[in-house]
Amino acid sequence: MSRVRTQVGIIGAGPAGLLLSHLLHLEGIDSVVLEARSRVYVERRVRAGVVEQPSADLLREVGLADRMDKEGLPHHGFSLRFDREDHRIPLTELTGSAITVYGQQEIVKDLIQARLAAGGDIRFEVSDVAVHDVETDRPRITFDGGELECDVIAGCDGFHGVSRGTIPVAVLKTFQQDYPFAWLGLLAKAEPSHEELIYTSHERGFALHSMRSPEVTRLYLQVDPDERIEDWSDDRVWDELHLRLETDDGFELNEGPVIEKGITPMRGFVAEPMRYGRLFLAGDAAHIVPPTGAKGMNLAIADVLVLSRALAALLHKGETELVESYSDTCLRRVWRAQGFSNHMTTMLHRAPGAEDYQHRLQLSQLRYTATSSAAATSLAENYVGLPF
Amino acid sequence: MSRVRTQVGIIGAGPAGLLLSHLLHLEGIDSVVLEARSRVYVERRVRAGVVEQPSADLLREVGLADRMDKEGLPHHGFSLRFDREDHRIPLTELTGSAITVYGQQEIVKDLIQARLAAGGDIRFEVSDVAVHDVETDRPRITFDGGELECDVIAGCDGFHGVSRGTIPVAVLKTFQQDYPFAWLGLLAKAEPSHEELIYTSHERGFALHSMRSPEVTRLYLQVDPDERIEDWSDDRVWDELHLRLETDDGFELNEGPVIEKGITPMRGFVAEPMRYGRLFLAGDAAHIVPPTGAKGMNLAIADVLVLSRALAALLHKGETELVESYSDTCLRRVWRAQGFSNHMTTMLHRAPGAEDYQHRLQLSQLRYTATSSAAATSLAENYVGLPF
Repeated sequence: MSRVRTQVGIIGAGPAGLLLSHLLHLEGIDSVVLEARSRVYVERRVRAGVVEQPSADLLREVGLADRMDKEGLPHHGFSLRFDREDHRIPLTELTGSAITVYGQQEIVKDLIQARLAAGGDIRFEVSDVAVHDVETDRPRITFDGGELECDVIAGCDGFHGVSRGTIPVAVLKTFQQDYPFAWLGLLAKAEPSHEELIYTSHERGFALHSMRSPEVTRLYLQVDPDERIEDWSDDRVWDELHLRLETDDGFELNEGPVIEKGITPMRGFVAEPMRYGRLFLAGDAAHIVPPTGAKGMNLAIADVLVLSRALAALLHKGETELVESYSDTCLRRVWRAQGFSNHMTTMLHRAPGAEDYQHRLQLSQLRYTATSSAAATSLAENYVGLPF
Repeated sequence: MSRVRTQVGIIGAGPAGLLLSHLLHLEGIDSVVLEARSRVYVERRVRAGVVEQPSADLLREVGLADRMDKEGLPHHGFSLRFDREDHRIPLTELTGSAITVYGQQEIVKDLIQARLAAGGDIRFEVSDVAVHDVETDRPRITFDGGELECDVIAGCDGFHGVSRGTIPVAVLKTFQQDYPFAWLGLLAKAEPSHEELIYTSHERGFALHSMRSPEVTRLYLQVDPDERIEDWSDDRVWDELHLRLETDDGFELNEGPVIEKGITPMRGFVAEPMRYGRLFLAGDAAHIVPPTGAKGMNLAIADVLVLSRALAALLHKGETELVESYSDTCLRRVWRAQGFSNHMTTMLHRAPGAEDYQHRLQLSQLRYTATSSAAATSLAENYVGLPF
């Protein structure tokens, strides 16, 4: 059994773990990343696609944005579609900032390449990961065939990872909100039908028009959480998309071969605190947002920026202040993102069995957002990302 | 049985009915106001106390603001109090507008005086009011000992009035939202403890510090809707107010003799449409908001402004366009106010049995509102009143 010594043991090679490893490297701190899946798997795992301004700025600052700036699509606004009409939210006009449409898996590819080029240690397909002694200053990670001796451990292993579960139940408080609907997502080889994202509120349910590239369209439909993907033929999905996205001025939805199709439940989840002894949770390991606000990956990026600074202070200077405030600092942004995601979700989806009163409130909120500069600015500043 | 001919028969001598009568008089249209209660009763009925900017401007424009401008208290901000700390929302700085603290019953007094001085016909303590023939252009109101022959009828008789019930069930759609809490209101002869309103979110429930005059404080506490006022001694009310309003910087709540004390349920309610034939609903007859947004009386004022213009076009020129759009025009503002009142209520109250997730969202929303200029402006522009 091989025993390796590193400063920071990182569990999970998603955006959180890989970016943390990169940021620590820039601080002169070494780390090892352990990942249960294969490199091919994590590089193909389709997730979020909206990079907020502070995230994009950070990626540029730390030398990770060359391909994003070439292939990513900068967006300066999006549309709220309701009552068969578009109402554009001019993000850049309202906030000075923008978003970049660039798939999470592309960022993962860029991160892996950067880490490997710098001699980084990423171990894929590692099994039986377990965390030990996080209450001491010599925590360990054991795994199939090896052991990592660390100064600290970063749990970046997602909602279903092992890290969060090692925090004693008496310490960890969890908060959850389940939504009575899910998203059916479709990736299609079709030119996007509109140059920007379209968030649609329709009496049949929410729909979202998005894109991955000038050739690939990403589309989402609100469905019941117990729907099975087998019951949604491509034809049925396209029919429903046409119905919900129709406008009075003749919007035309481009169709194309379906590359991928799946149903994702929607939930809000937060674990507090995000640190226990020398174990730090970051990203989905600590919190989940419904995808409506496009905040999941961006929160992970914000977490590990805070964490890299705290660990630099701890490991270089023995200062514990930032380590001790890590959880509170991250949670302020996390709860704001939960609130924003909840707001977008509630405004745009039809809750089954909801009173007509709620539908009228939704419509009024959409109209208000589309006509009040203050309301649109509030939406926009959350969407493009509040400053780190 | 006396038979009287008038152009507009108005049921209800609250702010809606009386102001409508005044506005019609200025347009050269005569009306008769029928009121079930006595003059003393309506002049002492304590209700709302916040006049939004567009309402105050209208009252000034139509010569009803002399006493309001002398005795009313202009407020240029209010406080959000949470986590034992105040966060001021600078209304005027954010919007250019302000509110005026002036009791609804004072406006009613001013209106009655103005109508009587102009020879207006207000009949108090009228019973057995009934509405007839609103589908014809000669609708009638019968009452104990008399009959009004009208061109149109305005139902300004509040939530429990007879007008709304005369619209056929097949035509009228109602929307309702009940809240799982009520307000215990206290009027006390005590100097206000702060120069502005304080909306407080506390783990024991909402509390509001307000005032009627430099000598009279108005205070509210969130209580369960099934609480009985008999169970709330003055001492218990003061104790609870002290607990919820405490701050870290030593806020002191002035006490004084209790003038009035009562419990009011909280609900949202809207009836659509607000017109049926020649019957027009205005104010509480058509809609109720929870008091948190201070919108009830202001919506009534907005309704009758729209109605007076529509009736002038109809009765002077035979134009029906404004009459036909009356309901839609009013309902846009009504639903915005429902949304705003719901937002304020949800952000500030503790719902019994709500998940901790919701409490965290509330706190995050309060913090965001206190720190984002866009969010504060959105709150402020609704509070001071969106333009008519």
